[in-house]
Amino acid sequence: MSSTYGKLFKISTFGESHGVGVGVIIDGCPSGIDFDSSFIQSELDRRKPGQSRITTQRREADEFEVLSGIFEGKTTGTPISLIVRNGDQRSKDYSHIAQQFRPSHADYTYTAKYGNRDYRGGGRSSARETIARVAAGAIAKLVLKQFGVEIQSYVSQVGKLKLTTPYQQLNIAEAEENAVRCPDQAMAQQMFDLIDETRKKGDSIGGVVNCVITGTPVGLGEPVFDKLHAELGKAMLSINAVKGFEYGSGFDGVEMYGSEHNDEMYVDENGKVRTKTNYSGGIQGGISNGEDIYFRVAFKPVATIMQDQESVDAEGNSVIVSGKGRHDPCVVPRAVPIVEAMAALVLVDFYLRNKAYSK
Amino acid sequence: MSSTYGKLFKISTFGESHGVGVGVIIDGCPSGIDFDSSFIQSELDRRKPGQSRITTQRREADEFEVLSGIFEGKTTGTPISLIVRNGDQRSKDYSHIAQQFRPSHADYTYTAKYGNRDYRGGGRSSARETIARVAAGAIAKLVLKQFGVEIQSYVSQVGKLKLTTPYQQLNIAEAEENAVRCPDQAMAQQMFDLIDETRKKGDSIGGVVNCVITGTPVGLGEPVFDKLHAELGKAMLSINAVKGFEYGSGFDGVEMYGSEHNDEMYVDENGKVRTKTNYSGGIQGGISNGEDIYFRVAFKPVATIMQDQESVDAEGNSVIVSGKGRHDPCVVPRAVPIVEAMAALVLVDFYLRNKAYSK
Amino acid sequence: MSSTYGKLFKISTFGESHGVGVGVIIDGCPSGIDFDSSFIQSELDRRKPGQSRITTQRREADEFEVLSGIFEGKTTGTPISLIVRNGDQRSKDYSHIAQQFRPSHADYTYTAKYGNRDYRGGGRSSARETIARVAAGAIAKLVLKQFGVEIQSYVSQVGKLKLTTPYQQLNIAEAEENAVRCPDQAMAQQMFDLIDETRKKGDSIGGVVNCVITGTPVGLGEPVFDKLHAELGKAMLSINAVKGFEYGSGFDGVEMYGSEHNDEMYVDENGKVRTKTNYSGGIQGGISNGEDIYFRVAFKPVATIMQDQESVDAEGNSVIVSGKGRHDPCVVPRAVPIVEAMAALVLVDFYLRNKAYSK
Amino acid sequence: MSSTYGKLFKISTFGESHGVGVGVIIDGCPSGIDFDSSFIQSELDRRKPGQSRITTQRREADEFEVLSGIFEGKTTGTPISLIVRNGDQRSKDYSHIAQQFRPSHADYTYTAKYGNRDYRGGGRSSARETIARVAAGAIAKLVLKQFGVEIQSYVSQVGKLKLTTPYQQLNIAEAEENAVRCPDQAMAQQMFDLIDETRKKGDSIGGVVNCVITGTPVGLGEPVFDKLHAELGKAMLSINAVKGFEYGSGFDGVEMYGSEHNDEMYVDENGKVRTKTNYSGGIQGGISNGEDIYFRVAFKPVATIMQDQESVDAEGNSVIVSGKGRHDPCVVPRAVPIVEAMAALVLVDFYLRNKAYSK
Repeated sequence: MSSTYGKLFKISTFGESHGVGVGVIIDGCPSGIDFDSSFIQSELDRRKPGQSRITTQRREADEFEVLSGIFEGKTTGTPISLIVRNGDQRSKDYSHIAQQFRPSHADYTYTAKYGNRDYRGGGRSSARETIARVAAGAIAKLVLKQFGVEIQSYVSQVGKLKLTTPYQQLNIAEAEENAVRCPDQAMAQQMFDLIDETRKKGDSIGGVVNCVITGTPVGLGEPVFDKLHAELGKAMLSINAVKGFEYGSGFDGVEMYGSEHNDEMYVDENGKVRTKTNYSGGIQGGISNGEDIYFRVAFKPVATIMQDQESVDAEGNSVIVSGKGRHDPCVVPRAVPIVEAMAALVLVDFYLRNKAYSK
Repeated sequence: MSSTYGKLFKISTFGESHGVGVGVIIDGCPSGIDFDSSFIQSELDRRKPGQSRITTQRREADEFEVLSGIFEGKTTGTPISLIVRNGDQRSKDYSHIAQQFRPSHADYTYTAKYGNRDYRGGGRSSARETIARVAAGAIAKLVLKQFGVEIQSYVSQVGKLKLTTPYQQLNIAEAEENAVRCPDQAMAQQMFDLIDETRKKGDSIGGVVNCVITGTPVGLGEPVFDKLHAELGKAMLSINAVKGFEYGSGFDGVEMYGSEHNDEMYVDENGKVRTKTNYSGGIQGGISNGEDIYFRVAFKPVATIMQDQESVDAEGNSVIVSGKGRHDPCVVPRAVPIVEAMAALVLVDFYLRNKAYSK
Repeated sequence: MSSTYGKLFKISTFGESHGVGVGVIIDGCPSGIDFDSSFIQSELDRRKPGQSRITTQRREADEFEVLSGIFEGKTTGTPISLIVRNGDQRSKDYSHIAQQFRPSHADYTYTAKYGNRDYRGGGRSSARETIARVAAGAIAKLVLKQFGVEIQSYVSQVGKLKLTTPYQQLNIAEAEENAVRCPDQAMAQQMFDLIDETRKKGDSIGGVVNCVITGTPVGLGEPVFDKLHAELGKAMLSINAVKGFEYGSGFDGVEMYGSEHNDEMYVDENGKVRTKTNYSGGIQGGISNGEDIYFRVAFKPVATIMQDQESVDAEGNSVIVSGKGRHDPCVVPRAVPIVEAMAALVLVDFYLRNKAYSK
Repeated sequence: MSSTYGKLFKISTFGESHGVGVGVIIDGCPSGIDFDSSFIQSELDRRKPGQSRITTQRREADEFEVLSGIFEGKTTGTPISLIVRNGDQRSKDYSHIAQQFRPSHADYTYTAKYGNRDYRGGGRSSARETIARVAAGAIAKLVLKQFGVEIQSYVSQVGKLKLTTPYQQLNIAEAEENAVRCPDQAMAQQMFDLIDETRKKGDSIGGVVNCVITGTPVGLGEPVFDKLHAELGKAMLSINAVKGFEYGSGFDGVEMYGSEHNDEMYVDENGKVRTKTNYSGGIQGGISNGEDIYFRVAFKPVATIMQDQESVDAEGNSVIVSGKGRHDPCVVPRAVPIVEAMAALVLVDFYLRNKAYSK
């Protein structure tokens, strides 16, 4: 198990779906940051279940408690610890899978690796683990805010429904106006209907989250291994249900010629070095170049469905796994703040590393 | 700069394109491994320039020298250090870009971040840096070999030319029979022609490398942050020119329903837990499940082209950058062993971590 | 702030003296370990205040709560999180030092480094932070116990009172029979009287804790930087009030000739390689050799005394700091379980690292 | 094996006594530092063998070669790699110990841990490994120099000969004027005679190195685990033959009362917060307070002596080990630059960490 992330802004997360709660320690937050509790809570609220009928009906207030690190409304440089206690646990819902391995879940691999597992609601492999990421990411955002960095995400695809409008032509903030978190309201409605229909069939469906980061200084990222996009990629791929990551031109860029793909450079009216195009996605040689950073994250259809499936149990018998419990038919609406949180954690860490080596 | 990778099988790489050479220290290789020099050299040979007319004409023998860690033909548990000296350096080729920023190269970002840079051939940002990865990866492969793990990669796309045959229907080993490293010989010829034509135009083009890992034990990967695919993703994205990573069903899986995508389970005739399909790409919950691991890596068209491009210089003047030097019109043929090397480094690290926590 | 310790058995601690509580996450505890709550509580009880009239009269039950990582009485391989809530807080006791820097405390350095500080009871620099170490160390002991490793500590010096009897001639377990934790009962009484007398004068006094580890396998320790004694030294020196560390012959060994100091070797009746003497302290070349490991840890007289002292305040004015609050006149009796806990953390980490690289 | 040290100024060392050479990669040196080759060489010269008749007669020029990271006389922020090639190797001198375990050497523990070992001259456990530390430390000193930090060490004890003069009354620079590196010339002569006499008897003897650091800014050190003195302690204890570490009042401070030991504070004429005494050794709560940092490091008599000793061989037979080879009868004269190098590495790392979290 490796529940620690970050080099200078280091987080350690803990907790299971049906245990006491889920929480995080941040070791390495700079001191003197205003601890804006209501902002942190609002980020958790964006992630919490029960926001609409297309998200899980598990009822959780997901209110956080500060355990350490804050004094008189400010960070002190000491470890910040937060916990969100679990509320609406129905562990009995899971007794039927204590000995069964649900297809495409982590049941089998956890059991094989660790010998035992907290099977209630997926235990540590539950998406509830991401609460800790969102809480820590919210604090990372507070650190970044003072430098004008803004991170925005939205849903760009659900199943075969794709929003192909370039992000520059969208008002991303409007994504928060609908339950799907797609900034195109018409497309959002189509996506909502598709998810709702999928839910009624007891099925699930995949989606894509796009993320755009503006206001980034030049110089974030540490080649050759900790390239900015490599660390962003790892951070995104570590989120439950993620299957792919691409930045800038991504997989489509493969089909281009260098003469098309290269971002020619110029100096703008403010004397700032800019690129005419941005196929690089704001990152060159693993280091931010000051242009917008943008990337896409692919989420699979979640494994929990309300249909019978063939599987095996811990004794190696064939079994039929029946879907129970309360789950999301499509994770991307709630994944939006998680993607942002992980991006914030990556950026703040590189921001601190950059300061370390600065003149 | 972060040129260190791995937690238990830790590598530190060094070196620039036109300096003394490129090398690596491996700190954490188990002792008693037979040090098969000819295998390591053969891996370096797969990566070296000048293999055909579609790769750079820089002439380098790329022979490695062992500096430490090997005694009487075996690893001793102490740091293994290797160096490959640079031979065919034509640093003068680069004097014209000492003050210019080549579009979509790391020239500008390195200069902005570090204040100065070794501009000769890209310095540290040169793809020559990957020599150290291939050398270290070869040693990782030697460790893995004893456990039956096999890593194979091949080119599946160049520009718009895509090999869509599922890997199961390919003889991947045959990829080594042509200069492109595509296992379908007819497609390989088309790709070769496209690359060669691109080269003649002084342009470059992108491509995709597929990787398949067989024989992996159940249990590799450390959730929640160091999931197997998250670490593979970071490792691949840290390779020069990579723009995207997907594993298993990847971005296509987004369009599926859970009822299609879930990999139902059964027990095979040997009593082994298996899945009927493998959309999971051999990884569930971030942990290998014993099925084949497969993933795809997108490479952009390399930035160096033999055409004039608009750019700026260090003083902020507009300049025309003219292509010079010797470069690959398409990196994927030579990227194949690099992808494998990084995969080997990821796997061996998790293999050691797994042993640490085993009963 | 760096509140993370360990490479494979990694702990992150949090909490302040007068905040919600003090706790720890252990990320990397092997799965399947019996979680012996009463043992963990008994270790915390050895550390807790109010054990006798020579320890601080702060009243704390110091009972721990498990927040994650345990299922059905066993570790699951997921992060174990524990918290001990603060009870008997009298924060008002500290309002007088909000703006004053107490001599030889961390008040000034924390303020200078972080800009602000939680001044109540020393905040993060309070010895209350060691609760997290003892809790984590208790779990480390549970892991080590299955391999026959035993760690014992005792007080060997208070002020000028020294117990010079070699540890081999002591029954170390008897140290727990008196409030000082010195295994020689007569010396313990003298030490008790000295501490009590010091307490009555409103003063404090230093001491030494000796630690002996038996049953260690050959091979723990990772040269060249993570030598076993180097890591033990760091672990001990990280405990509040520690000023020195020596192992084996230590500073006295300086005066010896090599011909006296070298530990000649033989094979015992069980075929085990042994040394005739053990000036090496069970460690050669940074690696355990199977002999007893022993070391000594020097603790200064604690800084809090009930006497007036000259100092300065945050505005740079001269002030008289008056001693208030409830503190230990001598820390070594309560430091005994802390030393053991840190030793356990070091050993378990090396134990896991050794397994990682084993055949 | 863990040959990596440091978090931000990270070094990885490699090499054996009788292999190709000994070297280091520094990953994380800030860019733009003037690379003063002659200073680095002069530091290596202070460590090199054959300086007088009381050091080993192995003849080594110990000249370093730069392999990467330097361009036009400056660091570039990329990994700096240096190597010192081995010259005067007489590997045959060691064939007699290929199967024998020398008492109080690492022969047995390396063999037990790793299964095999490069027995020539101790291989990786040779003090020749410290070349890499001195080279890296010299570069760390170059970084620190610009901030006015000065690190000075000297020999304060050889056998029973102790220099008890407080460092404030010494001109430490004069230590370099004699072969022993003791700043009191009369004492130096006595120590020289003792070492020479010991050498003639084919024996060895221990010693103590004192280190004083001036000009340190307030705020270096990262509690709770990476306290400045804890990291200094680990760094010193990782040097071959070190048995103990104490800082400030050290073990002697144990005997003091808090009312004596506490360093009362005042504001000096420049408005700087100071302490009247400095029993704290310049460190409070694990953080530098701006006063001089001083500590002492105990070295055992080295294990290699020119006398017969009882031991065992790899098959478990009793053997007589006869001393051969060329070794130092007392390591402290040559340990002086090594102590300084490790101190520099610790300080520069904390200096960078401090910048990371600064406003």
